[in-house]
Amino acid sequence: MIVQQIIENINNNQRFLVVAHENPDGDAIGSTLALALSLRDMGKDVVAYNADAIPDVMRFLPQCDVLVDSLPDNSHFDIAFVLDAGDLERTALPVRDLCQTVINIDHHPYSDFGDLCYVDTDACATAVLIYRVLMACQYQPSLAVAKALYLGILSDTGSFRYSSANQESFAIAGALVGLGVDPWEVSSNLYESNTPERMRLLSLVLPSLQISSSGHYASISMTLDTLKQSGASEEHSDGFVNYPRSIRGVEVALFFNQTAENLYKISFRSRGAIDVGT
Amino acid sequence: MIVQQIIENINNNQRFLVVAHENPDGDAIGSTLALALSLRDMGKDVVAYNADAIPDVMRFLPQCDVLVDSLPDNSHFDIAFVLDAGDLERTALPVRDLCQTVINIDHHPYSDFGDLCYVDTDACATAVLIYRVLMACQYQPSLAVAKALYLGILSDTGSFRYSSANQESFAIAGALVGLGVDPWEVSSNLYESNTPERMRLLSLVLPSLQISSSGHYASISMTLDTLKQSGASEEHSDGFVNYPRSIRGVEVALFFNQTAENLYKISFRSRGAIDVGT
Repeated sequence: MIVQQIIENINNNQRFLVVAHENPDGDAIGSTLALALSLRDMGKDVVAYNADAIPDVMRFLPQCDVLVDSLPDNSHFDIAFVLDAGDLERTALPVRDLCQTVINIDHHPYSDFGDLCYVDTDACATAVLIYRVLMACQYQPSLAVAKALYLGILSDTGSFRYSSANQESFAIAGALVGLGVDPWEVSSNLYESNTPERMRLLSLVLPSLQISSSGHYASISMTLDTLKQSGASEEHSDGFVNYPRSIRGVEVALFFNQTAENLYKISFRSRGAIDVGT
Repeated sequence: MIVQQIIENINNNQRFLVVAHENPDGDAIGSTLALALSLRDMGKDVVAYNADAIPDVMRFLPQCDVLVDSLPDNSHFDIAFVLDAGDLERTALPVRDLCQTVINIDHHPYSDFGDLCYVDTDACATAVLIYRVLMACQYQPSLAVAKALYLGILSDTGSFRYSSANQESFAIAGALVGLGVDPWEVSSNLYESNTPERMRLLSLVLPSLQISSSGHYASISMTLDTLKQSGASEEHSDGFVNYPRSIRGVEVALFFNQTAENLYKISFRSRGAIDVGT
């Protein structure tokens, strides 16, 4: 079926592009790196691309420097693997002009572009689909590939906390640990790599905590002044909304982020690891 | 061997006490509840005891009200299972006076008391050892038992983040999810149940963050005034030392906790999830 068709495309071609969505998360980077390194191990010519640089917290991944953020002039590929992207536009690359065949591998719903489309919303991460493809190729993941896949699963399940962490997620994570992945190495890099700027910003933002009288709503606020005072930048506040959300009884958490004198961007999070919109 | 001997003791006796260490963590509660409920399913008379009440964040566990913090007068048991205790004293119960046979099941090193002693420091949690015993009994865990075991593993691996999360940890977690455990239900209760008091205290403590010029040391401080101002109590600060520890580059984190006018208790944490002493 679809996995078999992907394997035939791998076997019958030589030049591959592997790309995921810009502003990459752990699954985008992990999936890209795992597939790219595996294809190289199989003797293929591979360019692994992301429009944005690999985030600092993921730079511990072995061989992550194969990921580039620019392509050589006149690049052309037999196959482009587009991973975890949801929409082709999110690669920020003219993928269609660069290759003959587009293969979309994703676990997001409504992700239906591509000449071949391998989408499974039951998978907790695109890394799971890459793992399945590699197993079907009878490819034994190297430690570098195993770490990259583990990062993808860890990241998209919020450290195995979300309901998306199903039986297969644990089975694959266990297999990857069996291949030599150290959970602490991956998780401490991903989750215990706060910058001093972020921590200072948090210490200034957290005192703004407001909890509604019902206890069902809680909010924190970041003003332009706070941001300036901390020396941090806006992206250092990523995930801050999880602090009010983590309070017992709170159903909806809000993060007010002042972006101009009279303008606030508001992020919402509901209980249940569901983004209720930004 | 030892597991077989434990099964014989289960089969040949009727009255069981199951107890873990006072001030219980997730593994102590999860293991106690899982073994107690399983023994009841097998038709045994069981008292599940903990010297301290079950923590609020674990009260979502089904049938957790079987856990009691006082024993009927003149209690006597055939077997006492002492779980996750390290030392018999930590049960805060005169176990030897209460039963004929003490069976110690634990994953802590140097835990060598008991007439039977089943200790395996390779197990990430005592819950893993309980799972092994139940499997050897050919007992199919109920959903209540599965949730309790999952809580134990989740708790002692820090949500599968520590290096103690080995291949067996993932295999068992996957099996428990296959039995119907929802990872989000367990993890959100355990990790996203901050009280408003704790969050207010954190917002007052975090601004005390100091990072050494080398970036290798970081500290936060809680004064008597801070505590009073927050309306929280000292135990609301459990785990606060993880905030300075989570900063990239920090090797040792310190938490100064003022306990009297001129007295500070200092908690240390090193990188690597190792407690370097309190």
